[in-house]
Amino acid sequence: MKICGVIAEYNPFHNGHLYHLKEARKQTGADVIIVVMSGNFLQRGEPAISDKWSRAKVALQNGADIVIELPVDFSVQPADYFAEGAVSILNSLNCDVLCFGSEDGDSQAFEKAADLYVKHESELDKLFKTTHQKNQTYAHNFNEVLSTYFSNFPLDLSLPNNILGFAYAKEIRKHKYPMAIKTVSRLNSQYHDRDLDSQQSIASATAIRAALIKQDSTVQELKRFAPAGTIDSLESRPVVSWNDFFPYLNYQITLLPTEELRNMYMMETGLEYRFKEKISTAFNMEELLEKVKTKQLTWVSLQRICFHILMNNSRESMSVRMGKIDAVRLLGFTSAGQAYINQSKSKFTVQLISNVNKKTATMLAQDIRAGNLYRLAEKSRIDDQDFYTKPINFIDIKDLN
Amino acid sequence: MKICGVIAEYNPFHNGHLYHLKEARKQTGADVIIVVMSGNFLQRGEPAISDKWSRAKVALQNGADIVIELPVDFSVQPADYFAEGAVSILNSLNCDVLCFGSEDGDSQAFEKAADLYVKHESELDKLFKTTHQKNQTYAHNFNEVLSTYFSNFPLDLSLPNNILGFAYAKEIRKHKYPMAIKTVSRLNSQYHDRDLDSQQSIASATAIRAALIKQDSTVQELKRFAPAGTIDSLESRPVVSWNDFFPYLNYQITLLPTEELRNMYMMETGLEYRFKEKISTAFNMEELLEKVKTKQLTWVSLQRICFHILMNNSRESMSVRMGKIDAVRLLGFTSAGQAYINQSKSKFTVQLISNVNKKTATMLAQDIRAGNLYRLAEKSRIDDQDFYTKPINFIDIKDLN
Repeated sequence: MKICGVIAEYNPFHNGHLYHLKEARKQTGADVIIVVMSGNFLQRGEPAISDKWSRAKVALQNGADIVIELPVDFSVQPADYFAEGAVSILNSLNCDVLCFGSEDGDSQAFEKAADLYVKHESELDKLFKTTHQKNQTYAHNFNEVLSTYFSNFPLDLSLPNNILGFAYAKEIRKHKYPMAIKTVSRLNSQYHDRDLDSQQSIASATAIRAALIKQDSTVQELKRFAPAGTIDSLESRPVVSWNDFFPYLNYQITLLPTEELRNMYMMETGLEYRFKEKISTAFNMEELLEKVKTKQLTWVSLQRICFHILMNNSRESMSVRMGKIDAVRLLGFTSAGQAYINQSKSKFTVQLISNVNKKTATMLAQDIRAGNLYRLAEKSRIDDQDFYTKPINFIDIKDLN
Repeated sequence: MKICGVIAEYNPFHNGHLYHLKEARKQTGADVIIVVMSGNFLQRGEPAISDKWSRAKVALQNGADIVIELPVDFSVQPADYFAEGAVSILNSLNCDVLCFGSEDGDSQAFEKAADLYVKHESELDKLFKTTHQKNQTYAHNFNEVLSTYFSNFPLDLSLPNNILGFAYAKEIRKHKYPMAIKTVSRLNSQYHDRDLDSQQSIASATAIRAALIKQDSTVQELKRFAPAGTIDSLESRPVVSWNDFFPYLNYQITLLPTEELRNMYMMETGLEYRFKEKISTAFNMEELLEKVKTKQLTWVSLQRICFHILMNNSRESMSVRMGKIDAVRLLGFTSAGQAYINQSKSKFTVQLISNVNKKTATMLAQDIRAGNLYRLAEKSRIDDQDFYTKPINFIDIKDLN
């Protein structure tokens, strides 16, 4: 039996994702595809456009057999931690192969790059420390190190999907996980294309989100770019964005003393003063980030810091939690997925949680908190995320529509 | 030189307050009237209808010579703590006489009641502990003790202004402050009258607020009940109520783990679970309080607890701060007030702070936090409360109008 793992956010699920899942099944010959998906808050430090349940459902409708929630402590993270969490879960569920989209498309290039990196890690770290420029981003400095050290590094790490894929490959290589790599080339659209091209059926999630949030497109106009399940889901729920949480972030930055803000996870030295100073004249998320931004911080890192403020994630509390993942939320399954779980769960090294009760709630405390906060975007229209929600069973999906 | 102290909230300042200030000056023959006024959050656990500066200005226009902010740690409190803070400030500023409004109107009755109470305090405490009923409010139990112990207690402590006045008299007696008592009978309106009577020129602040918040009266219709300054102030600023802060309270209750909610100042045992459970289905302040309310908790105590949640006031942090008041914010003065301050400040035992800077900000940290949170009701329309605001000088008032 062949088990293929996929790491995703599906924000929202579109035709590019559909193509990827089809290719994953075809190219790996998988019997079961397990998707580890970010929950309600995502890698780029943003809330998901719709909640984890509605996105899991669309994934199951379009080729996934099992959808697992990537714990929020790992989802809102730079590529390395994101990869560490997601790949370790797939390994705990005994995946044989990891399939991801990339700009590069050459699986061997990722394996070779990961091998080179892991073998030379301590020298690269040393070089990074001595050469990194303070007014440059981490990604820029990291690329400089690679191109200085290796005359011909096998991957272009300026491309966002290559960066993520490289992080996955490194995790596999570092822990010697028994997991192969299969990469699928992305079609047509570039990751960050901001405009919808009406001549194509593939658009980037970035372009789709931008169109939805700015409301210059109706959901119906997106039909060309995404399967019916996505359109249904977007029509029946509010489209959530950072601005829905700005009042709470505003309150939290106003309330917390500087010394507490300073202790937030990922807060850069001195940035806490900028937040405290600028908040009184910022009236939305974009204004706040424009005001506090410095040259060495990317927009995405700032969004992540804001998320940690919103969640009250201190450095200490995160370091306690960032160890091995013991339990994850099962979001849904098809009959093939269910059969695989029943047959193999005794060999899994992570607990799959179907029902949240007093006992399991402790294990999922952060994800439950994130789900409750997510509902504050529009409490009356976003359903309970954990205590009263059970995994989606694909057999029931038609009734749910 | 005769200095008269007054303790007030002016929420908003109305004709009853005007009458009180006139009578205070007349009956005590005061050269200077010092008002200690609650800032942005008030004794009943509510935000003020308009900010502390606009209310201080109206007080100066209508008879006060000096307006001092009662620190928020003492303003949002049951009568005893409220009185402790306010009376101690007036004593530190060398007031000769305290003048307050009451239902009773007999100054000697207050002095006699305070004397009786202080002399028998330990026996009364003992009796309270053995007889108090858990499903009754504190006020009810306290009155039961007084009527059991004294056959003919000189004050009716079921009336709200008598309760406050008694608390002031007790403080004076307990600390042997060299301060006389003068009480002025309230005119016409009862403290809690909820309706405006168009045949009268005196209405309760409760009725005025209710009319403003429900927006069934325009500010102009209130002209009969309040001086011009109040009308101007209400017309130029948003009318603030608890519902403006409900989103932040909602967020905070959702965010904080039960064990942190439990540590909030004044949180009753077990109430933290009710807050956590009920918040997910409450969509405004009234709904939330209706859902968490129990028989032994008054609406007012619940509002105070909500305020402490909003301010993140833990039991520990409050107990550290609830000692002697070292510094208070000076909100404004007339020329007579200024002359008194200049002449007597070397004898004051509390520091009057005119300007908030790095050093004084530490002393006023809680009031500054409360002011910043207060602005969140409508940040674009409520001015900075502390860092950029100087005391009102009566000479400038005409220009400010």
